[in-house]
Amino acid sequence: MADTAPTVTDQLLKFARATPPAEAQAMMRLSLLDWAACGIAGAREEDFSDFIRAGRGQGACTVLGGHSAGPAAAALINGTLAHALDFDDTHFAHIGHPSVAVVPAVLALAQDVGASLDDVVEAATLGVEASILVGLWLGRDHYQIGYHQTATAGAFGATLATARLLGLDKAQMRHALGLCASMASGVKAQFGTMAKPLNAGLAARTGVEATLWAQAGMTAADDGLAGPLGFGETHHGAAVAVTPGKAPWHIGSISHKFHACCHGLHAMLEALRDADLDLSRVETIRIRTHPRWMSVCNIEAPTTGLEAKFSYAQTAAMALLGHDTGAIASFTDEITQDPEVVALRAKIRINDDPRLSETQAEVFVSMEGREMRRFRHDLMAPMTMEARAEKLRSKARGLLGEVRAEDLHKAVQGDSLSAFAAILSEP
Amino acid sequence: MADTAPTVTDQLLKFARATPPAEAQAMMRLSLLDWAACGIAGAREEDFSDFIRAGRGQGACTVLGGHSAGPAAAALINGTLAHALDFDDTHFAHIGHPSVAVVPAVLALAQDVGASLDDVVEAATLGVEASILVGLWLGRDHYQIGYHQTATAGAFGATLATARLLGLDKAQMRHALGLCASMASGVKAQFGTMAKPLNAGLAARTGVEATLWAQAGMTAADDGLAGPLGFGETHHGAAVAVTPGKAPWHIGSISHKFHACCHGLHAMLEALRDADLDLSRVETIRIRTHPRWMSVCNIEAPTTGLEAKFSYAQTAAMALLGHDTGAIASFTDEITQDPEVVALRAKIRINDDPRLSETQAEVFVSMEGREMRRFRHDLMAPMTMEARAEKLRSKARGLLGEVRAEDLHKAVQGDSLSAFAAILSEP
Repeated sequence: MADTAPTVTDQLLKFARATPPAEAQAMMRLSLLDWAACGIAGAREEDFSDFIRAGRGQGACTVLGGHSAGPAAAALINGTLAHALDFDDTHFAHIGHPSVAVVPAVLALAQDVGASLDDVVEAATLGVEASILVGLWLGRDHYQIGYHQTATAGAFGATLATARLLGLDKAQMRHALGLCASMASGVKAQFGTMAKPLNAGLAARTGVEATLWAQAGMTAADDGLAGPLGFGETHHGAAVAVTPGKAPWHIGSISHKFHACCHGLHAMLEALRDADLDLSRVETIRIRTHPRWMSVCNIEAPTTGLEAKFSYAQTAAMALLGHDTGAIASFTDEITQDPEVVALRAKIRINDDPRLSETQAEVFVSMEGREMRRFRHDLMAPMTMEARAEKLRSKARGLLGEVRAEDLHKAVQGDSLSAFAAILSEP
Repeated sequence: MADTAPTVTDQLLKFARATPPAEAQAMMRLSLLDWAACGIAGAREEDFSDFIRAGRGQGACTVLGGHSAGPAAAALINGTLAHALDFDDTHFAHIGHPSVAVVPAVLALAQDVGASLDDVVEAATLGVEASILVGLWLGRDHYQIGYHQTATAGAFGATLATARLLGLDKAQMRHALGLCASMASGVKAQFGTMAKPLNAGLAARTGVEATLWAQAGMTAADDGLAGPLGFGETHHGAAVAVTPGKAPWHIGSISHKFHACCHGLHAMLEALRDADLDLSRVETIRIRTHPRWMSVCNIEAPTTGLEAKFSYAQTAAMALLGHDTGAIASFTDEITQDPEVVALRAKIRINDDPRLSETQAEVFVSMEGREMRRFRHDLMAPMTMEARAEKLRSKARGLLGEVRAEDLHKAVQGDSLSAFAAILSEP
């Protein structure tokens, strides 16, 4: 390879030996809190109970909500459950949910080999960063044509993270990434079905299996990701140049979901957070958003709780009327027919504005007496680590209750993997 | 769906209820013999031993070469091992190996639920036919761009076969095919590595898991194969129209490998089978073949046993000198340096001829005294079931020895799954 430019695979193999900066690891610990809270809540979804029963078995690895399994099965189940509510962290450039494929893979193998939580955080930080890098390298067309980037890019990040955790040598790690190129998969046709979270679970399992099999001597393509007849070439990858390890790490721009609905609505909901309007004087509310979202989350008159999660008018009305959009329980069929909500919805107009980015929203409110008020928010706006931690603790309290949320918050700041795992396994 | 044309998924769901014709099932029994012989021999490959050890475990399903596992793990291992020698059946239109993904999936679940060998044959016949149909539907571009059709199309066939075996209702079967659309994968970058046979094993496991998970209530895209953002659309599928169930079934045109080398060499080797040349009088040998093969199996001066398997000149010389090209043991590093072979190789010229199909070859031999002899063969030439059975028994004897080959031949003609499985599990 001496005479040719390094491919993204070469770059990732080098990056796998990096030490993640402290602030990147601090962000990872917050995402670990968020991942666990979403996962414990997701494990209560009845629909998945037969799938969980079929998959769990003997092994050292914790399954969310109780029981145990071997590492591959635990990663599969935990990845699926942690994405069941679609409430876990995202990264807009990656295009996807970066922690949900990586964390369950690292966690399962860490329990299998008796690693510490510090080891988990270090490996997961590298894996999440790698997922984002592969997502950037694959590019937007990969997502637009129909691949579920959370799962495809995520599988490579999960593989790199587990390979790092188990200390694979460079040749084995190359084979692990090569094996991943034959297993990374998942299509967007699944959105709206249980197979969407399953895609995330499959990516986590791929991370576990690619690493274990490479360790067991399985060989694979020298460059399954970026080489001829490989993943990128076949899966509409754009091969966008990336620079792994360059400061600041991408993990720093992870977005956490603080509202239990489509991420396209979040900038608008944040803009309205402190609006404090006298609703009796409101005449019209005009919401401006990036054009991409108009086909994603602009259901005008939702009739179900699920539809409510994809509606600007509905969620704006809920927020202004004091309904907690951070709580999953708020999104009921009934709330879509609430007379106050329906009346306020009628005053709301949605327009696309190509000058806004995907993370920005603006709201213009016309009040009686020609008064105009304007609110705006950008999800990329800097947030201190303290503010983020406080918001995530609050979210965890909403999902898990006061005691367990605080236990979890303490556990992710420590180094005891068994203490962390014990909280995951409570029903 | 009433007003729209049925998609290939709708066609497959209907086809899954068909009863396979007797001659299709007879062909499947021969492919079962061939699959088992290749699998038992493949299980002796030392490279895979750690992979097998890591995967097997508790369960009712036989693992090739000994031990047992649950259905998903057994399908994964058995699919991988049966393709390890690359000696299993192929189908030129499908573009791939049709039995290797389907048989291990059906076999594992049949053992798990206590089905009969007749049930296995019926379900596998439908699954193999479905794999070929999906391969045709995906088209040649899917393969050319780099997807390993054995694995991608094979996963759908394996899913249909297992869903039929377990008696899934139509809605569950639709979900199973939908789940398969998120799991079917495998790239050609793996060719030449252990991940090539792994691709086949993964496809078999996908068949098992998609069916078990759909049975456990997992939902998926309504049309994950042919619908929007689905497998075909994302994976360069051409959506070539197919007519499932139309006589004669495609399974009838399966090719079995009677030479332990690249399939592109087989027509030439069959042409030379009864040539009976006086080699002392041979001046030149001109081989004509389809242009596709020139970049696949035309190594001029091979130096290893593996390279020998991809060389017209080498294998032609071996065949004419009486070396058994049907025996794996014939392909050694030494045979590439054998003086007689090297001398004869020097008289051989290879040319492409676009008038020939991929299954045809012609050989022109110039003898001393201006004598010309011409040999030709088409792998599609009809072969009676009796002749095929005899050739496959002979191949099995070469792989397994007289006694075990005959036991296997008897077992695949019977209805006892346990008798068949017992032969597979001998080391």
